[in-house]
Amino acid sequence: MNLLNETLARIQPVDPALLAEAQKKLDNKTKPLGSLGRLEEFARRFAAISGSLSPDTRKKVIFTFAADHGVVEEGVSAFSREVTPQMVYNFINGGAGVNVLARHCGSEVLVVDIGVDHDFGAIPGLIRKKVARGTRNFTRGPAMSRDEALAAIGVGIELAAHARAEGVALVGTGEMGIGNTTPASAIIAAISAKPAREVTHRGTGISDAALENKIRVIERGLELNRPDPRDPLDVLAKVGGLEIAGIAGLVLGCAANRIPVVVDGFISSAGALIASELHPHVKEYIFASHRSVEIGHGFMLERLAAEPILDLGLRLGEGTGAALAIGIIEAAVKVLNEMATFGEAGVSEQNM
Amino acid sequence: MNLLNETLARIQPVDPALLAEAQKKLDNKTKPLGSLGRLEEFARRFAAISGSLSPDTRKKVIFTFAADHGVVEEGVSAFSREVTPQMVYNFINGGAGVNVLARHCGSEVLVVDIGVDHDFGAIPGLIRKKVARGTRNFTRGPAMSRDEALAAIGVGIELAAHARAEGVALVGTGEMGIGNTTPASAIIAAISAKPAREVTHRGTGISDAALENKIRVIERGLELNRPDPRDPLDVLAKVGGLEIAGIAGLVLGCAANRIPVVVDGFISSAGALIASELHPHVKEYIFASHRSVEIGHGFMLERLAAEPILDLGLRLGEGTGAALAIGIIEAAVKVLNEMATFGEAGVSEQNM
Repeated sequence: MNLLNETLARIQPVDPALLAEAQKKLDNKTKPLGSLGRLEEFARRFAAISGSLSPDTRKKVIFTFAADHGVVEEGVSAFSREVTPQMVYNFINGGAGVNVLARHCGSEVLVVDIGVDHDFGAIPGLIRKKVARGTRNFTRGPAMSRDEALAAIGVGIELAAHARAEGVALVGTGEMGIGNTTPASAIIAAISAKPAREVTHRGTGISDAALENKIRVIERGLELNRPDPRDPLDVLAKVGGLEIAGIAGLVLGCAANRIPVVVDGFISSAGALIASELHPHVKEYIFASHRSVEIGHGFMLERLAAEPILDLGLRLGEGTGAALAIGIIEAAVKVLNEMATFGEAGVSEQNM
Repeated sequence: MNLLNETLARIQPVDPALLAEAQKKLDNKTKPLGSLGRLEEFARRFAAISGSLSPDTRKKVIFTFAADHGVVEEGVSAFSREVTPQMVYNFINGGAGVNVLARHCGSEVLVVDIGVDHDFGAIPGLIRKKVARGTRNFTRGPAMSRDEALAAIGVGIELAAHARAEGVALVGTGEMGIGNTTPASAIIAAISAKPAREVTHRGTGISDAALENKIRVIERGLELNRPDPRDPLDVLAKVGGLEIAGIAGLVLGCAANRIPVVVDGFISSAGALIASELHPHVKEYIFASHRSVEIGHGFMLERLAAEPILDLGLRLGEGTGAALAIGIIEAAVKVLNEMATFGEAGVSEQNM
């Protein structure tokens, strides 16, 4: 049995009895019933996923997967390809958006080269898991072979297992890859059977003309490769990306290892979508960090049955939305862990 | 000139040149233009309000004002009146929701007895500024005299001045007062001229019958007292509350002292509304932390021209929403302070 199938076989539904016990604990806290709204949902789910009514949240890690995309040569991005490795150095040096926001929420950022078209050598702080030097241009053939897609998923699965072994309580996803809104939109179009136009947006901020070109590029890629929507691996390999595959694997691995996983924005959701198409119970382990500006995001959130935590007009990726949401989720868990009960505080309960 | 008028005279519009300079600084950071969405708005406003392009955010304080309400004898709340002092002790002991969430965001909680019907004596950690032992029942006459309302506003103004003197970078509002959604709804009804039914909701979670009673109580209070919507002080005194007045004063004081102020939920927004009715530029200093479940909140947010930061179904008050939003606002300011520029990181800028 290969790593993917073995992982899929280990994913169980979240225990409803634990969800109920966590809510019962929340209901004894000094506040009107349900008055902390979605914080109570986050705390309850976190407790049930992790299997503890007093969950530890100290160790938090955001995995930022970096990869290049052959389709960039079709002019789909406002930034040139060299920016992917430049940003990897920026992550390593702690200067990027995700670094700032992860420090703020007390999370580590682990940067994974899963497919950057650049030889970094052995630089401290970079996790070297390059599957290929970027995908191939999907307007000329499949972006990856099925084996490459499986290898990239395997990287994510192994990182989740490593996180479990290290006692990580909460995992966030993130990515960097110039051009990667194009494969993400292509994945949604393939799985939803919606026209590319309805799920394709401006990415880092392209012009009207460039958006029209991006839509045509996705249409050509889908026509040429004909990904099978019932086979998520086929979709991922033919029009996806290596970082998206890594995220899919990470999400699967978190579900298998009962680690709550906070999914960043548009690109990360494409990875989470592939994971949840592979196993329906994956959804129960996911926290959707925010609603992206990208128009295709809504479909993914619906398909993931996920209500995003934040809606702040973000479209940076990297794991920035995940970092912000981690702060909120940890706050919710602290409510469960730290708030006084009516009994402890000597506060009278409500009488109607 | 009294303290209120003196404070109103000191409130200036936020400098648009500083807003533009802050945005320019953000635009040099290693990210696509505008891709951090509302975080950029928060950072820009924080910088312009505080007068620094590298604002210090270390000292943060949430003021939780506690007071009682005569109108509770009309059966408008699911909790009995003794819960107000019980919760004050809970705040002092660090066990309430606001304590947990404020610790999480690195903010202090300062608890202010501005009108609790209980003699606390000199307990450490309680700021004793009692104006009266609660308001009077507004179905039988005005809740406060105009002088009492002014005194409670003065408490908030003085706390803001003290915060400025102590170098507090960011202030949050909070409150505790059994029954206080009733005066908050009455204030909205008075100022908006909307029927009480359209702005009155379940507070801590009352039944349908109790909600009908609460609406009738507000209608009776408005009919009897006839607050003048063009005179915010008249509205505040006749159907408001001491904690709401304290919050109004705090918000005015923050605006006068150029301290960004994060307004909690429904009750706090009623205080902020009184403040902004007294001076239009107050709005520019306010961050609306979240969208409350209470149906009257939407009107207040519109009138304050404030788009809430979070929408998590909260209805606890105390400053819990403010604490969560403070975490997001501080994250935004750190983007301004800590992210590398394209030049510093050697990252190529976008080319279209």
